[in-house]
Amino acid sequence: MSISMYSASVPVAIRLLNNLSAILGKAAAHCEARKIDETALLNSRIFPDMFPLSRQVQIAGDMIKGGVSRLAGAEIPRFEDNEASFAELQARIAKTVDYLSTFKPEQVDGSEDKDIEITRSSGTVKYKGQAYLTEQVLPNFFFHVTTAYNLLRHGGVEIGKRDYLGN
Amino acid sequence: MSISMYSASVPVAIRLLNNLSAILGKAAAHCEARKIDETALLNSRIFPDMFPLSRQVQIAGDMIKGGVSRLAGAEIPRFEDNEASFAELQARIAKTVDYLSTFKPEQVDGSEDKDIEITRSSGTVKYKGQAYLTEQVLPNFFFHVTTAYNLLRHGGVEIGKRDYLGN
Repeated sequence: MSISMYSASVPVAIRLLNNLSAILGKAAAHCEARKIDETALLNSRIFPDMFPLSRQVQIAGDMIKGGVSRLAGAEIPRFEDNEASFAELQARIAKTVDYLSTFKPEQVDGSEDKDIEITRSSGTVKYKGQAYLTEQVLPNFFFHVTTAYNLLRHGGVEIGKRDYLGN
Repeated sequence: MSISMYSASVPVAIRLLNNLSAILGKAAAHCEARKIDETALLNSRIFPDMFPLSRQVQIAGDMIKGGVSRLAGAEIPRFEDNEASFAELQARIAKTVDYLSTFKPEQVDGSEDKDIEITRSSGTVKYKGQAYLTEQVLPNFFFHVTTAYNLLRHGGVEIGKRDYLGN
């Protein structure tokens, strides 16, 4: 088997998203056991001008949802950002995993040289597919999953690297 | 061009390590300008039982150094963990980038099905090369780079996601 644009993205992200969902389940149990208001953790931030935990989880999923869609030339489904509990964030992750699971390898493979255009407030940026995946989508995805993990660790939830890696 | 075990690892990691080095340079300048003792940041932790910032930087480099070495069947160089300043951590990163730069694509490509054995205190774990890269090496690498970034953000260093992504 050779590594491919699909195998480097979809199964890797599904695995991490499922790990993140299990971590959020532990956070919910932690709050339940200690009578902690979930919103205290959901609104926590590494620094005041960074996004809170709930938004970190949403963005992690959106990065890979948008990334894989663009590589495959599919329309990106929009999810409302209205999750207000760990259970709702887990449902959001499940919805993202379900969406990612609809892609077949042949829809993503071979997209290394595909032209990808991203329009941001600062202007339009152009990438080739492989650079887009390895320099933008995956670093962003891992960034937001890790930041969510760090916020929960900082908040005292008893999780470890094995929960993040899923092994 | 097709994505490969080499292109999914070595250039991706070199890019992120160089970004991290630039971030550490900004942290040093921040400390210098505000008369902050660098060790206050270097010893900072997300939670008391997590590794401090300096160790996060060391581990980030070690994860990819060990990962690429194992995929290529090369002996892993050991670096002493004795860095005590941002400048020394930048030198450590430069040494790691130099080492990674010695690998040619053909040394890493085709390692998808290679048997990789990792011995930990909990026992020996076996992977195939591709799962080792995408489920262990890269998630660990991004984890430690992001955690170093988060610790600096938490400490008030003025950096942003663009510093992390390098664009």
